Amino acid sequence: MHSSRQELRVDLGERSYPILIGPSLLGQQDLTPFVAGEQVMIVSNETVAPLYMEAAKACFPGKTVDTVVLPDGEQYKNWQTLNLIFDALLERRHSRKTTLVALGGGVVGDMTGFAAASYQRGVPFIQIPTTLLSQVDSSVGGKTGINHPLGKNMVGAFHQPEVVLIDTATLNTLPEREVSAGLAEVIKYGLIRDVAFLAWLEANIERLIGLEADALAEAIYRSCACKADVVAQDEREGGLRAILNLGHTFGHAIETFAGYGSWLHGEAVGAGMLMAADLSVRLGMLSGDDQSRAREVILKARLPETVPEGMKPDDFLRLMAVDKKNVDGALRLVLLTGLGDAVIVSDASTQSLRETLNKFCCSE
Amino acid sequence: MHSSRQELRVDLGERSYPILIGPSLLGQQDLTPFVAGEQVMIVSNETVAPLYMEAAKACFPGKTVDTVVLPDGEQYKNWQTLNLIFDALLERRHSRKTTLVALGGGVVGDMTGFAAASYQRGVPFIQIPTTLLSQVDSSVGGKTGINHPLGKNMVGAFHQPEVVLIDTATLNTLPEREVSAGLAEVIKYGLIRDVAFLAWLEANIERLIGLEADALAEAIYRSCACKADVVAQDEREGGLRAILNLGHTFGHAIETFAGYGSWLHGEAVGAGMLMAADLSVRLGMLSGDDQSRAREVILKARLPETVPEGMKPDDFLRLMAVDKKNVDGALRLVLLTGLGDAVIVSDASTQSLRETLNKFCCSE
Repeated sequence: MHSSRQELRVDLGERSYPILIGPSLLGQQDLTPFVAGEQVMIVSNETVAPLYMEAAKACFPGKTVDTVVLPDGEQYKNWQTLNLIFDALLERRHSRKTTLVALGGGVVGDMTGFAAASYQRGVPFIQIPTTLLSQVDSSVGGKTGINHPLGKNMVGAFHQPEVVLIDTATLNTLPEREVSAGLAEVIKYGLIRDVAFLAWLEANIERLIGLEADALAEAIYRSCACKADVVAQDEREGGLRAILNLGHTFGHAIETFAGYGSWLHGEAVGAGMLMAADLSVRLGMLSGDDQSRAREVILKARLPETVPEGMKPDDFLRLMAVDKKNVDGALRLVLLTGLGDAVIVSDASTQSLRETLNKFCCSE
Repeated sequence: MHSSRQELRVDLGERSYPILIGPSLLGQQDLTPFVAGEQVMIVSNETVAPLYMEAAKACFPGKTVDTVVLPDGEQYKNWQTLNLIFDALLERRHSRKTTLVALGGGVVGDMTGFAAASYQRGVPFIQIPTTLLSQVDSSVGGKTGINHPLGKNMVGAFHQPEVVLIDTATLNTLPEREVSAGLAEVIKYGLIRDVAFLAWLEANIERLIGLEADALAEAIYRSCACKADVVAQDEREGGLRAILNLGHTFGHAIETFAGYGSWLHGEAVGAGMLMAADLSVRLGMLSGDDQSRAREVILKARLPETVPEGMKPDDFLRLMAVDKKNVDGALRLVLLTGLGDAVIVSDASTQSLRETLNKFCCSE
């Protein structure tokens, strides 16, 4: 069963940890070596728990395993839902030696990680991502948090997991929209850092959409390797790590405007990457041919080229003004200077930015 | 003006920071060297802001200073109030380069520190404590957090400040109850670690209650020096630091039972230290004479020897079961083996503990 298991390592000194990737690891892989004491609290949501909670419990033989099931959706990534985790921990008297486990997508992972960072001022946690997006991106790197009505992920912590367990078989139950949303982050790695991977994606996008197991495993492995490499160089986003936010500044504005939960994060990132590529061309940084290649693979992943109905350029400018990358009032954007090459630009021409926004906001 | 300024240092490698102690530092001391960017957000409460906000602003010449004023009291140390800080930061578009400033007592300091630990996954902050308790204890050491209905300080972070500014003149406006509450933590340092300081306190307790400036300055300096030394040895409470919790396990149970805000933290700690001393004697660890000395100085500080009306031994046992020091279900208590010597006991006899609880719960 484990013959096809692959392993990566996120190299962060004493905070280093492994990423285990393979089919049917859930229920087979013993995770007790990553548990601090006798108590385990598995956090999941109402969609994922019926499918995988029992298998997840089986990863912790001999431990006292409690569970908490949250409502499903980005609109629940807030204080109220976070408090359900603290309620469960305190009602079951979990001590500072407990270990939290995130079983689900990015929302469950981000909230469980922040709960672990904050419960009794910090306990360890384990990531078991069950969506493509969380497997290739959000479960790796230690970014945790919740949303605020005025901005996405505005409250949180850097808190690295003890291990990331990626069971690729969980993708077989994933809805089509979630597959496309995950592919947005996969394509991102090709665009910002690995043109050879981008070429592989162009050749294999149909197989990925068809959920072919070996193609998915390859895409997940290469995505995680890219993310682990960037995070190891810049854990707390002092510089390089910000390139992982290609499309995210536009995307967060879309998610906030549309209301958390109506657009999937990956869908908003897909549209945001198209906008970033468009602006890169207007600024003379990217060729039209490269933009076309980027656009084609994004659209083949069935990601939207539109923005939410009624969203105006001024909505973007207002919502992007609170982006975490901004410094002392200056908007900072991740743009492309070529396929596989991203830069952070803090002085993008307002004129060009308005042209990009006008194009996308008026194309509906 | 600054001739009487004293300076200590909390030695934590790259997280080291100074503690500045003296009269009338507020409004005189330039704190801009401790500010990361151009933005500053001063957090205070409705009691302290009218007295000291303008002077605090004057510590940041040339910076963009915004303010947020919270309701006053331990009962507001929760998510709802914490969110008022995030609201203000986002409405005023504070970036990841902002610096938060806590101007007030322990509640303001703990909440501002946790807001700083969590806003955009972490920004720097400055402590300007204005109560005796926060000056001698909570502003130093980086413990931040909020309460949960099931336990005090159960959600939070370790997040060290950039500097602690202690203006001893602010104590002139402090209500009598708050002075006593602060003295509980001052006496604690004598009991757990410094019998010479305890003797000094016995000789000077009347001068402290009378708010004599030089006595207060000496007590604050010696308390901060003790705390800084313990924190430098054990920042995240892996061991030694737990002794700073003498009386706190009983005390937190009192605060939670009584309802946050009805007992001052220091009052509950005072009663808790009496209970810890009583239990230490019952366990044969502490002599009756030493217990009497401890009791006398605590009562001279006008601290209560009672527990909340109607609080039963079982209430203590239930509420102490969620204490952060506990490991895998075992209650851990800080007890005294002598004056100036504390230990952490995880196997205290249940019989003796019940005797102590019976004594205090039935003495009303």
